Amino acid sequence: MKIAYADLKATFKRVLLDLSFEENKAELCAGIFADNSRDGVYSHGINRFPVFVAYVKKGWINIHAEPALAERNGLIECWDGHLGPGMYNATVAMNRAIEQAQENGIGCVALKNTNHWMRGGTYGWQAAKAGCIGICFTNTIPNMPPWGGIEPRLGNNPLVISVPFENGQHIVLDMAMSQYSYGKLQENSLQQKELSVPGGFDEEGKLTTVPSAIIKTQRALPVGFWKGSGLSLILDVLLTAVTGGQSVKRISEREAETGLSQFFLCLHQNDYHEQLVKEIIAYTKSASPTDPNESILYPGERTLAIRMKNEAEGIPVNQKMWEAILAL
Amino acid sequence: MKIAYADLKATFKRVLLDLSFEENKAELCAGIFADNSRDGVYSHGINRFPVFVAYVKKGWINIHAEPALAERNGLIECWDGHLGPGMYNATVAMNRAIEQAQENGIGCVALKNTNHWMRGGTYGWQAAKAGCIGICFTNTIPNMPPWGGIEPRLGNNPLVISVPFENGQHIVLDMAMSQYSYGKLQENSLQQKELSVPGGFDEEGKLTTVPSAIIKTQRALPVGFWKGSGLSLILDVLLTAVTGGQSVKRISEREAETGLSQFFLCLHQNDYHEQLVKEIIAYTKSASPTDPNESILYPGERTLAIRMKNEAEGIPVNQKMWEAILAL
Repeated sequence: MKIAYADLKATFKRVLLDLSFEENKAELCAGIFADNSRDGVYSHGINRFPVFVAYVKKGWINIHAEPALAERNGLIECWDGHLGPGMYNATVAMNRAIEQAQENGIGCVALKNTNHWMRGGTYGWQAAKAGCIGICFTNTIPNMPPWGGIEPRLGNNPLVISVPFENGQHIVLDMAMSQYSYGKLQENSLQQKELSVPGGFDEEGKLTTVPSAIIKTQRALPVGFWKGSGLSLILDVLLTAVTGGQSVKRISEREAETGLSQFFLCLHQNDYHEQLVKEIIAYTKSASPTDPNESILYPGERTLAIRMKNEAEGIPVNQKMWEAILAL
Repeated sequence: MKIAYADLKATFKRVLLDLSFEENKAELCAGIFADNSRDGVYSHGINRFPVFVAYVKKGWINIHAEPALAERNGLIECWDGHLGPGMYNATVAMNRAIEQAQENGIGCVALKNTNHWMRGGTYGWQAAKAGCIGICFTNTIPNMPPWGGIEPRLGNNPLVISVPFENGQHIVLDMAMSQYSYGKLQENSLQQKELSVPGGFDEEGKLTTVPSAIIKTQRALPVGFWKGSGLSLILDVLLTAVTGGQSVKRISEREAETGLSQFFLCLHQNDYHEQLVKEIIAYTKSASPTDPNESILYPGERTLAIRMKNEAEGIPVNQKMWEAILAL
């Protein structure tokens, strides 16, 4: 079934207000959950909403907390999220980085003791909409073995980079460091679909495209094997070194995935040399397609297409999930 | 055969002085080539030196050029490398970012019209040695197809991130966006060795571990398939948007790989929470190894081990290559 954006957002907001969220936080968080579904990231939109509500009910998310500046180091600001709602904290942090960048060309906010920001791309779009280049990343619970190791010790630590582009068709990369999320593996496993590329290791330690084999071993593949393993590790190191907050290791010791560390960097200038960037996009798209029915897309392009379709036709929701949310 | 570091560097320096390099540039460039070999990156050390000399002789590198500030945008400085030696320009740019970071907590230098910086890790180590977190990246000639495309349209655009760590054992990630460089593919092909993981596509469009098949198709694999493809693209977009310099597309139109764009970012603070970082490293290493004879390493750890071995035993060089360099 399909639900109009306004209905989806209003329902999320009603549930959050019932949980005693302040009006502004309910509005913002409901909007982000609705936006994520509208943009096709259902795993961090409607499908994640009940988990978020459960976290609030268990007291793992402090809905009345306000993020605050904890330390200033030159132009780098370190903020403490006080375990408030992750989407709210991340939005405030990115806004502050945007504000600094508009003033100084560059802005940098590190955030500790925050919570899951849902879709990382949200904050990349936020920066681009404000006319800034945005770079941000977060750590997570361990969900990926390091290269050469068997048990999960690294987070998939999503990295987001966004560049403002013509008429809001911003270029927004949002990549986790595992080739597939467990959500994606589960989805493919239920549909008995093979992965299009190897996503992890089977019980014999061989690369496999069979999602159930990876769910069994818990040996998801880092992007680029040793490279994504190294990139995931160093993002966690950087976050921890700058904030003194929880590392992936420390997060693993908590009763849930809470108390994360994040980093928000913005660059602002008046001229992003759009003609040259258009040339890059056209050049990239000029390669012969491997599949004549598919186009070569730039990061964010598919998101925009799904957004327009879902805005026109309504947002696809799983009926049971929707009924469960209506009953919250 | 093995050559002592001092001999290697002195030989490089003598050749550069004979080419009319100024003393300080000859010293710096010879040092970087020698360091790269000492650290085990022979492809961008001794083995690349003759190519560098050829570029100088053809006039593609202007050895007397000095990089200069072209534009200031708040705290972001855009420098013009004037097609000078890439290692020299990159060192100057990173030094300036370090200087800014020591003053303001953060420093940011974008560089256009520069040349190949050889090993990206060089500048990550430079930042870490100066007590800064460093992030830098460069574009290159197109050497990798975008995801969904057949012909090369993306650079492998190396990304470097470094964090100062105990007693100079800095954590330094240096990753190109292709799973293997063509140098690595060639090396394995000559030795008739299969790749340990898929490195590209064969003529049937299937993933393969056979290096010669990839050299034939020129379809090298981006790290993480669509993810590395997107990351490579957005780094080039960011570089071009910020500097207005040459993109991968524009570099492809030049007679050689010259006129590159680069980005240098530094963060500086007094406390990098080293105990917490040590904990991360120990936790990562605590995973059971997939191969009991191999350890789980952090980025930069192998470099340091090779450095110590090569400093003690001399630097391995190919005898023919060494004789060719002595004859320059």
